[in-house]
Amino acid sequence: MDSDYGIPRELSPLQKERALYQPGLPPCLQGTTVRVEYGDATTASDPAGAHVISRAFPHTYGQPLAHFLRATAKVPDAQIISEFPIIRVGVVFCGRQSPGGHNVVWGLYDAIKAHNRKSVLLGFVGGTEGLFAQKTLEITDDILSSYKNQGGYDLLGRTKDQIRTTEQVNAAMATCQALKLDALVIIGGVTSNTDGAQLAETFAEQNCSTKVVGVPVTLNGDLKNQFVEMNVGFDTICKVILGEEVAASKLTIFDLAQQICDAVQARADIGKNHGVILIPEGLVESIPELYALIQEIHGLHLKGVSVENISSQLSPWATALFEFLPPFIRKQLLLHPESDDSAQLSQIETEKLLAQLVESEINRRLKEGIYKGKKFNAICHFFGYQARGSLPSKFDCDYAYVLGHVSYHVLAAGLNGYMATITNLKSPVNKWKCGAAPITAMMTVKTRGPSSRQIGKPAVHPATIDLKGRAYELLRENATSCLLDDIYRNPGPLQFDGPGADSKVVSLSVEDRDYMGRIKLLQEYLDKVNSQCYLYLVILLFLYYHFL
Amino acid sequence: MDSDYGIPRELSPLQKERALYQPGLPPCLQGTTVRVEYGDATTASDPAGAHVISRAFPHTYGQPLAHFLRATAKVPDAQIISEFPIIRVGVVFCGRQSPGGHNVVWGLYDAIKAHNRKSVLLGFVGGTEGLFAQKTLEITDDILSSYKNQGGYDLLGRTKDQIRTTEQVNAAMATCQALKLDALVIIGGVTSNTDGAQLAETFAEQNCSTKVVGVPVTLNGDLKNQFVEMNVGFDTICKVILGEEVAASKLTIFDLAQQICDAVQARADIGKNHGVILIPEGLVESIPELYALIQEIHGLHLKGVSVENISSQLSPWATALFEFLPPFIRKQLLLHPESDDSAQLSQIETEKLLAQLVESEINRRLKEGIYKGKKFNAICHFFGYQARGSLPSKFDCDYAYVLGHVSYHVLAAGLNGYMATITNLKSPVNKWKCGAAPITAMMTVKTRGPSSRQIGKPAVHPATIDLKGRAYELLRENATSCLLDDIYRNPGPLQFDGPGADSKVVSLSVEDRDYMGRIKLLQEYLDKVNSQCYLYLVILLFLYYHFL
Repeated sequence: MDSDYGIPRELSPLQKERALYQPGLPPCLQGTTVRVEYGDATTASDPAGAHVISRAFPHTYGQPLAHFLRATAKVPDAQIISEFPIIRVGVVFCGRQSPGGHNVVWGLYDAIKAHNRKSVLLGFVGGTEGLFAQKTLEITDDILSSYKNQGGYDLLGRTKDQIRTTEQVNAAMATCQALKLDALVIIGGVTSNTDGAQLAETFAEQNCSTKVVGVPVTLNGDLKNQFVEMNVGFDTICKVILGEEVAASKLTIFDLAQQICDAVQARADIGKNHGVILIPEGLVESIPELYALIQEIHGLHLKGVSVENISSQLSPWATALFEFLPPFIRKQLLLHPESDDSAQLSQIETEKLLAQLVESEINRRLKEGIYKGKKFNAICHFFGYQARGSLPSKFDCDYAYVLGHVSYHVLAAGLNGYMATITNLKSPVNKWKCGAAPITAMMTVKTRGPSSRQIGKPAVHPATIDLKGRAYELLRENATSCLLDDIYRNPGPLQFDGPGADSKVVSLSVEDRDYMGRIKLLQEYLDKVNSQCYLYLVILLFLYYHFL
Repeated sequence: MDSDYGIPRELSPLQKERALYQPGLPPCLQGTTVRVEYGDATTASDPAGAHVISRAFPHTYGQPLAHFLRATAKVPDAQIISEFPIIRVGVVFCGRQSPGGHNVVWGLYDAIKAHNRKSVLLGFVGGTEGLFAQKTLEITDDILSSYKNQGGYDLLGRTKDQIRTTEQVNAAMATCQALKLDALVIIGGVTSNTDGAQLAETFAEQNCSTKVVGVPVTLNGDLKNQFVEMNVGFDTICKVILGEEVAASKLTIFDLAQQICDAVQARADIGKNHGVILIPEGLVESIPELYALIQEIHGLHLKGVSVENISSQLSPWATALFEFLPPFIRKQLLLHPESDDSAQLSQIETEKLLAQLVESEINRRLKEGIYKGKKFNAICHFFGYQARGSLPSKFDCDYAYVLGHVSYHVLAAGLNGYMATITNLKSPVNKWKCGAAPITAMMTVKTRGPSSRQIGKPAVHPATIDLKGRAYELLRENATSCLLDDIYRNPGPLQFDGPGADSKVVSLSVEDRDYMGRIKLLQEYLDKVNSQCYLYLVILLFLYYHFL
């Protein structure tokens, strides 16, 4: 099976065209000499968790932000990296496939080789299992050729997506030492980067010289915070599937079915016997009673109760709900959990459950003469896996490739437990700002959550939709219109050439998240005015109103 | 509801770009004057049915092929159309949505207006229901502007897709007479064009002066014959979904499940716990026992038996099979038939039925120690509706637009019961050959079929895959490799710009279907050599070996 990895592949005509595309680099990364400027020490984004996080990460907490500048930049304190010893770097895909993953490997490879042809990039084949078992593939130009700008994680594969247990951490460390790795680059989402931060801490504590660098790549679009404007993959997804709606008002599944029935009926009353309902993959977790049921099942999973015996060990309340659900949902709820400890959400056909509940209710209303529209018939589509293997958009090709370069500069600067970052993404590549932030600075501590294991433990958590934000406000304002009118928008297929190829995710412009850039701007300004306290406050307030 | 039709729509950026695309015209259609050359009288493609067809279509059977040539073409017998009176034309979408439908309307409109600005094109809103109820929308430049090169049938909509019963035919005729239509253009697939031919015959018989013209537009790719190389829509579909496999060896559903299990097991034996199985939408109809069951259900539908009572009226044999099937399939089998009299094939989740049967069998093999791979878990995707609303490919934009022009020339020539055709499609637009063929010449007579109503009745039938053809032969040769290797091909998203935008369906080149062109070539040659019988045979044989 390993022999499949990294072999040249026959590509379709469009894939061949894409393989020839060469992303550009921002000015700060052009040439071999790069300056690193460090900011102040970071803290936790939520002060409430700072103490817990600092105690859990004594070696890697509180490190400064890093900014990469061009060699000619006039910054007196910046460190110039001008020596390029031979280095050995390992890279691993950790987490489910996302467009852009291959380009991170490519960018990292190009940056490594540009600085020393004798340096080596080893890809772990088969994901984390390969990392634990020291199974590697040396990345070369030949190997990369049919994977450039391509979708999926076929070059190296992925498996368990977890570096968490003591055995796993020890195996990873043994590998890094055996292969004499100067750095390990982890390509993944929130869970994988949390694991990466833990690995960095353990390596530092145990004097393992390998530095750990994270790169934000995930399909979910939920790895964003004050340092990360957006993860790689999200731009492609926005052009492939339609979007996501949030359900946060703690309705029961029956309330939800009733609301849908009301909408169907209201549309039928104005002659519209059609409509589209978007249901987010993780909806079941937002529904209180299902959430509680999933938690119980998950607890029994962790206790080692076999799938066959779980239903008999549920609480009476949970049993009642479980027995009420259609057999297909019962079966899906019992599936083994994913790498991030959540249930196999993508395997729970929420849409079918809702369709069934809505159909029964509409039929009841029809018999009672309340509903007067046509017979209700739901057609369900599931898009959960459809975009994972997509060719990455031009934006994601560029973003991932440049992030690959940035991750090289992070490890070349000897930084440990950092995530490579790029900000000002809404502008063209030549305006992008490159840097790195300690992963611990992105962590929060949850006081409640779906898995008891997560409570009290610092982690990078998925970003949730801001219910006070402008985007959500606009959505609410247009709710009635969305419900009763026919407001569809067809983004069309992903374009690589022509005017459609350069469009970017709208939220990049609406939500200006260039916190790194603003922090840097503020710092420069403060340097100039010699830290006058009064001005500091004024500027902060100005920045707050102007940008946030 | 009617007010929705033809209103300007807000388009996405890519849709806006596409709306600006202007398809070209082949030289024969440029300028206002076009020559029409007629070939010999046509007959039926299958001589066995000729007698039945000629009797069913006494007024429209046996008409000659028509070829449209540029005004300067040196063809002595060609008719030059140089007068352009004001005409009134109706156009109706008949059949399910297919990319390209809007461009036929656009092309037809441009051609009509280019020949006389005072001529009028009326679109029937709401499909055939609009045709029966005389609900029209006058097509204008403004109305067309946001529908050019766009997917779906939103401009005019569609409904019943049937013009078949005496009431329907009479209603259509009443509309054509009330609106003083010189011609009615029907945009649709095999069923709609069969209806169109019947309508043409009835109009001719009853001295209704409206001419009926068909345009081959359907998603299925099954409207092809010696006159029609390919229908509009197929090129887009080939770029959006993956393809279709044929199952013609009359296996039972259980044989099929066993074969899939064997494949799963064979792959697991070489360490491959993954695989993709493509299942065509209509597979259930190819499985003898399910086919027989569907026929019985369909018969009861036609007798007016209500859905609730059908299961109790099945034969003992059919009852046994019906009761064995999972509830969701039972429910789906009872759904009302589609416009073309087949069951709601797209609503029968064959993939889920097979997944369930395969899972049971694999679990049995697992327990008995025959299967040693990982636990079997099927993820089903249904792509049946996904491409219907797709933006049409560049090819389909061009093809549909030019066909719209051709349909104008067909009606301007006063032809009735013809389908607009373009051949040599594998070449660029400027090499395309335009013509028209009587729909009756595409008809065959079935001696058996899923619906007793179809037996003995002339119709244009869907093209089936040629099991003796080169394409299928290639597939068989590679069967083992497809079964055990990982041969995936990702065509990538539909491109409108750049090198990927001009690719065409492979089968257009593999299966050279330019029969119209060859007939014309032969005719020209025969004219030159004065019909020497010996040479005729030699040329025929040469053409047969060389092109077919």
